[in-house]
Amino acid sequence: MRDVYLAGAGMTRFAKQPDRTLKELTEEAVLGAVEDAELSFAHLEVAFFGNAVAGSLTGQEMVLGQVSLRPLGIDCIPIFNIENACASSSSAFHLAWQGVAGGLYDAALVVGAEKMTHPDRARTFGALAGAVDVESFPLDGGAERSPFMDLYAEKARHYMETSGATIRDFAAVAVKNQYHGSLNPKAQYGAELDIETVLRSPEVVWPLTLLMCSPISDGAAAAVVVSRRLVRGRRQAIRVAASVVRSGVDPRKGSETSATVAAEAAYAAAGIGPQDIHCLELHDAAAPAELALYEELGLAAPGEGPALIRDGVTRLGGKLPVNTSGGLIARGHPIGATGLAQLVEIVQQLRGEAGPRQVPGARVGMAHNAGGWLQGDNAAVAVHIVVRE
Amino acid sequence: MRDVYLAGAGMTRFAKQPDRTLKELTEEAVLGAVEDAELSFAHLEVAFFGNAVAGSLTGQEMVLGQVSLRPLGIDCIPIFNIENACASSSSAFHLAWQGVAGGLYDAALVVGAEKMTHPDRARTFGALAGAVDVESFPLDGGAERSPFMDLYAEKARHYMETSGATIRDFAAVAVKNQYHGSLNPKAQYGAELDIETVLRSPEVVWPLTLLMCSPISDGAAAAVVVSRRLVRGRRQAIRVAASVVRSGVDPRKGSETSATVAAEAAYAAAGIGPQDIHCLELHDAAAPAELALYEELGLAAPGEGPALIRDGVTRLGGKLPVNTSGGLIARGHPIGATGLAQLVEIVQQLRGEAGPRQVPGARVGMAHNAGGWLQGDNAAVAVHIVVRE
Repeated sequence: MRDVYLAGAGMTRFAKQPDRTLKELTEEAVLGAVEDAELSFAHLEVAFFGNAVAGSLTGQEMVLGQVSLRPLGIDCIPIFNIENACASSSSAFHLAWQGVAGGLYDAALVVGAEKMTHPDRARTFGALAGAVDVESFPLDGGAERSPFMDLYAEKARHYMETSGATIRDFAAVAVKNQYHGSLNPKAQYGAELDIETVLRSPEVVWPLTLLMCSPISDGAAAAVVVSRRLVRGRRQAIRVAASVVRSGVDPRKGSETSATVAAEAAYAAAGIGPQDIHCLELHDAAAPAELALYEELGLAAPGEGPALIRDGVTRLGGKLPVNTSGGLIARGHPIGATGLAQLVEIVQQLRGEAGPRQVPGARVGMAHNAGGWLQGDNAAVAVHIVVRE
Repeated sequence: MRDVYLAGAGMTRFAKQPDRTLKELTEEAVLGAVEDAELSFAHLEVAFFGNAVAGSLTGQEMVLGQVSLRPLGIDCIPIFNIENACASSSSAFHLAWQGVAGGLYDAALVVGAEKMTHPDRARTFGALAGAVDVESFPLDGGAERSPFMDLYAEKARHYMETSGATIRDFAAVAVKNQYHGSLNPKAQYGAELDIETVLRSPEVVWPLTLLMCSPISDGAAAAVVVSRRLVRGRRQAIRVAASVVRSGVDPRKGSETSATVAAEAAYAAAGIGPQDIHCLELHDAAAPAELALYEELGLAAPGEGPALIRDGVTRLGGKLPVNTSGGLIARGHPIGATGLAQLVEIVQQLRGEAGPRQVPGARVGMAHNAGGWLQGDNAAVAVHIVVRE
């Protein structure tokens, strides 16, 4: 297996953008990533296109990558459409890594693009229900919220029991990520809030309030993955030290979650431990998940997740800033684009280009992205570790 | 890159199976493939799941592979959902090949599964319209036929002008493939017909009659792809000599189609030419396409396609039997499963296990699978060449 580099990354702003098409969002992200890599379209040998709900919301059920990339003139290379719910574009990134690591390609384009806004909000929430087993949980045509918020709320209530986390801890996560988002020009939201404001926002389903939940977003992100030969600018070489995707957990391993399984595999592949990470983007689809993930990813001992937010460890200025982009809550969560947006943030951090939200001296970054839900755990989890050489 | 072997292949019968779920179809195909490979589930390190229209027809827009494989207990390996319209499972196969060739995995499962029957036939036809650019060609809610038949009819009319092919030649393709299908117990249809019967069947859109068109089908196919280490039974080793996927054609190359581009790349990778192929499965979504593909794949010179069917070259007993499975027309065309079903047929032929439709001495087989439509050509084409060692 060859070394693989994340040569370039780009993204649109994440926001409600009902007037922009997937093609337009794709174009902006791809141009940004290719320019950032200091390469041209002629270098691209393959493309992996991640999307989750275009079929449900636009009717473009098939060949979305080809349809979206052709206007750019990217039309005579292999194009694969990759779906793993909210982990679609991190899964696409993994397959690009696989192709370059294996020696088949020197340059691969990865795209994650998603339009979630729809004139009928229930259509958007209904589409999200297609990320669970619909035979077991039939679609609710009149959904008033994402079915995932019920799942996250249930997990949050369980986590409160096992860790002693309070609803104020959950609100503190939202405060932190909203603050980080306020420093990110690509973020959908961002503000300096206090805990009371988060707690007073409308209840979605107890203990989640609206400001603890990731919003409906439109946006795209892209990356260019290359072999050593195509890395331009020696100082900026960002190496993919681990690329791991897991679906589900081994039922024989009891309480382990797929996040733990994937993170442990990633640490082993990269030859590092959680204490070596300088900046981390994780899948805070709802604020409580962030605290549980501190533990599942090995950053905190079992039950110790809340201490990290109480002590400011994961806020900018702390020892391990988490979700400096604003996370899913504030940067936004156009589901098929989220995994790559996490990597865009990590690349900027490792290059020292993150401006007011820069983590000083960041050299090792990690991204955790999760998708779908099946019998108590995510259906897919991707963990990437990238390092500045 | 390492040598990659197609260790096992299995499939359900293709047919209208409204009472069977995707999970049931998947289970039968996967059990068949894994048993055929003389391996167990514990050997499988990754799975690539191809499907195209489950989102449109069942609402299972996301994580279909995880949902379908979990009941089998295949639930703690990476699972990727791959879509390229009618070339979904051949694209999935290519990515499995990529993973094994690159050294990341020793055993990969590939599945193609599709349920197309729906109580409302217009829903099925409408779903197929999601394989073109829906912004340019809005979905027709009241579709009475697959939009692809209009595209194939237009291409057929053009081919008649350039090659001198007649409507009787097209009917002869259907006669041949129906005959082949009559010898395949997994085929949806199959009969000894005459040309007049094909011509007298209801017109779909001129010059296509119903018996020249692939039917609506339900079914699944699966394959196990391995490194040399996991090949059981030395005499049955089937090596993947070329795995090529292309999307679209280089606009600078004039009349070349993506089938030609992909076939030329596959011949080069395998180090053989079209004259070395002993059996071939190709994408006869409508009968005329088979004749044009004879030329596009290099089996016949430009304008010489019709001669191959007139002279019986591509019928069982001829020099190069094509679509011995019955092809899409007779074996059936559950779109996301078709690419792997082609490889199931090739494996059986190369092993000498094809019974009454055996091509004597077949040692080199090829499969051509196409998906989607974009500005005059398929959006994705996969060509595989496999050889018995």
